[in-house]
Amino acid sequence: MKSIDCLIEARWIVPVEPPGALEAHALALHEGRIEALLPVNEARKRFAPTRQLHLDRHVLIPGLVNLHTHAAMTLLRGIADDIALMQWLQQHVWPVEMREVSPAFVYDGTLLACAEMLRGGITLFNDMYFFPEAAARAAITAGMRAAIGMIVVDFPSPYGSDAADYLSKGLDLRDALRSQPLLSFCLAPHAPYSVGDKALAQVATYANELDLPIHMHVHESADEIEQGIARNGCRPLERLRNLGLIGPNLIAVHAIHLTADEIALLAAHGCHVAHCPSSNLKLASGMAPVARLVAAGVNVGLGSDGAASNNRLDLFSEMREAALLAKAVANDATAASAFEVLKMATLNGARALGLHDTVGSLVPGKAADIAAVDFGVPELMPCYDPVSHLVYAAGRHDVSHVWIGGEAALEEGELVRPELRAVHKLAASWELRIAPQARTGAHRP
Amino acid sequence: MKSIDCLIEARWIVPVEPPGALEAHALALHEGRIEALLPVNEARKRFAPTRQLHLDRHVLIPGLVNLHTHAAMTLLRGIADDIALMQWLQQHVWPVEMREVSPAFVYDGTLLACAEMLRGGITLFNDMYFFPEAAARAAITAGMRAAIGMIVVDFPSPYGSDAADYLSKGLDLRDALRSQPLLSFCLAPHAPYSVGDKALAQVATYANELDLPIHMHVHESADEIEQGIARNGCRPLERLRNLGLIGPNLIAVHAIHLTADEIALLAAHGCHVAHCPSSNLKLASGMAPVARLVAAGVNVGLGSDGAASNNRLDLFSEMREAALLAKAVANDATAASAFEVLKMATLNGARALGLHDTVGSLVPGKAADIAAVDFGVPELMPCYDPVSHLVYAAGRHDVSHVWIGGEAALEEGELVRPELRAVHKLAASWELRIAPQARTGAHRP
Repeated sequence: MKSIDCLIEARWIVPVEPPGALEAHALALHEGRIEALLPVNEARKRFAPTRQLHLDRHVLIPGLVNLHTHAAMTLLRGIADDIALMQWLQQHVWPVEMREVSPAFVYDGTLLACAEMLRGGITLFNDMYFFPEAAARAAITAGMRAAIGMIVVDFPSPYGSDAADYLSKGLDLRDALRSQPLLSFCLAPHAPYSVGDKALAQVATYANELDLPIHMHVHESADEIEQGIARNGCRPLERLRNLGLIGPNLIAVHAIHLTADEIALLAAHGCHVAHCPSSNLKLASGMAPVARLVAAGVNVGLGSDGAASNNRLDLFSEMREAALLAKAVANDATAASAFEVLKMATLNGARALGLHDTVGSLVPGKAADIAAVDFGVPELMPCYDPVSHLVYAAGRHDVSHVWIGGEAALEEGELVRPELRAVHKLAASWELRIAPQARTGAHRP
Repeated sequence: MKSIDCLIEARWIVPVEPPGALEAHALALHEGRIEALLPVNEARKRFAPTRQLHLDRHVLIPGLVNLHTHAAMTLLRGIADDIALMQWLQQHVWPVEMREVSPAFVYDGTLLACAEMLRGGITLFNDMYFFPEAAARAAITAGMRAAIGMIVVDFPSPYGSDAADYLSKGLDLRDALRSQPLLSFCLAPHAPYSVGDKALAQVATYANELDLPIHMHVHESADEIEQGIARNGCRPLERLRNLGLIGPNLIAVHAIHLTADEIALLAAHGCHVAHCPSSNLKLASGMAPVARLVAAGVNVGLGSDGAASNNRLDLFSEMREAALLAKAVANDATAASAFEVLKMATLNGARALGLHDTVGSLVPGKAADIAAVDFGVPELMPCYDPVSHLVYAAGRHDVSHVWIGGEAALEEGELVRPELRAVHKLAASWELRIAPQARTGAHRP
């Protein structure tokens, strides 16, 4: 018998690769990786585990991948609801950010985001925010896998003075943190309307030279496209193409307003889409053509966006919303099946980040990034198909255990690391400070 | 000082009437009713409570009203996903129902539904299903408020032979259970396509004579309208008008496909709409014009629909979906504010059922139907506006306490009644029996 670190037996395992749910199987974990996925009876014969778990009401899934967020914005959760994107950004979010954003804000806000995401089964997040070194420190403190965005915008902020400054700070950070096993990096030009041609051309060059993903808001609102045409004589995606950003490194966030030609363009160049259905609806930005993107072969992952526009960092919500909304948009109840959206929330997100050889499915050799969902509650009974339940019936609160690189991050619903168990103190102090700046309009009749 | 049964002090109270959130207030309960809503300091001087609760991380809200469900269908949760309405009904749901539906099925399924709904803060549900006496018994066992549908369909089922048989059984049941304090009754003709003219005219007569609400699926799919025109020469709502069903007693469920004239008709006659956004999306039925209905003055409540088409009986999900979807449909991020949808899920639902003098808001004199939501979790921190959090950030699992008519139904997240704590045994036995008939297609790639 082979000695291993941990054997987890579960009622069901949904490895994502291959599709379907396995009953009475076990996952063998060793040195942070998945050693084997096999029937329980075989596992008991083959392995001598140091630790053994029997999760007999549970389903094991790959840790969820949040393909687009601004983690630190948890501190602005619900700061301004029920208003449109540009007004929300320009009159509410940006002014508060310019006053408040600091390394302490980003560290505390990201730590709070990690607590929230881990409790909901998310093990990897793709972040875009100011002071990315503070976000990286928080992810390290949390023991969470993160793709840290090297943010680029043209306008000054407490973090940087201009696009060149942002870019050099981001690249320096990447150099400094290269050895961190749970971190990876993306170039993160904010959006076509907030980054000029020169900086975007540089981003394209670095993306090619360093083989880095490009994480960027693209075609989020109809306004953005109209203004792009007025300023540049073409739609933003056409401009990005001219500047060399359209390729397999591009993660186009939102990607709501797309012509048939633009869908074909994204597909032909192997681009990825970070679909953020809740945020898209809440800001009345629109409804992305998900079924058409999938049919064209575009790799679609799911993102929560930031907590100021959602207002939850919850991929269970996004899975359900993605599945429900795609059906109505396509006028086809067979669009976006439960399995398809579970794949979006796991393997597709990992693929967009270039991390699909490491995470995204429960395949031997990959890192042991795993979530367990407890189906032993009335809300999830009876169960005829665990994949259906994961998407349509379960919620983030049903997540009971999370492992990242084999290390337990959540056990029986409790966060393991003490820094994460103390986030309520950080949140309370920021609440006091920011409350006077909030737009508390949700009670208007 | 006045002796009262219970005083609940909370961080916030959102009474729905008037709008807004009150801090440092308390609810005084006595003999099943709300005695007073007042500042904590005053309450401590004025009342000598037998029991006192300090919910210092919590917000108190009126118990939620589920304005449309088929409660017993929890036993068919997820039985056939990712297919369109008519195929779902005719090839999957109806065949299983014809084989399995019985008083035992309805009692057990409804009891499971009550457990799920109570855990999610729902205190009143408007039900439509076969064997309504079994649903009524389950609601009584659960201690839950329910509007029991006197179902009418033209086709035979294990419960009835024809429309006249259904109708007389329903009216007999109402007579037998008149003295039940938590029960009320609706006439529940299933849909325009499943009930003929004669029965509908009878329904209209009874509704007027007995002042009963009419609970009916209306304009759920484009197909239904086309078939109605082919069969009757007019759209179903026009037919209902001709038969005398359009009036302040009508609760039009779904009401997705509406012309401007039809919206004006519903408004002019004081009709109510039970908006079921999740079910409407999942079956690709369409997106209801909620902002236009509200602007026209139609009273809109929220329903979960049954667990076979949703797959959760969860008004927190429906509140969030209603708010998000209305914005994108109206192309207006100010549509369906958080407060508006909270009102839909409480007072508007009560009003549709004619119960707004009894429940739906935390107003002295009304029944003490209350839910407490625990905001002391990372997902709900910080908090700048509790109404925003209730709709956009909180979920059903954050509900910690529920009272119905002053009786505790849920305490610290645990169901109080032993019959509800044992529903998992019922669910497990039905799962074994029904599983071979399920369409387990959610794993298809």
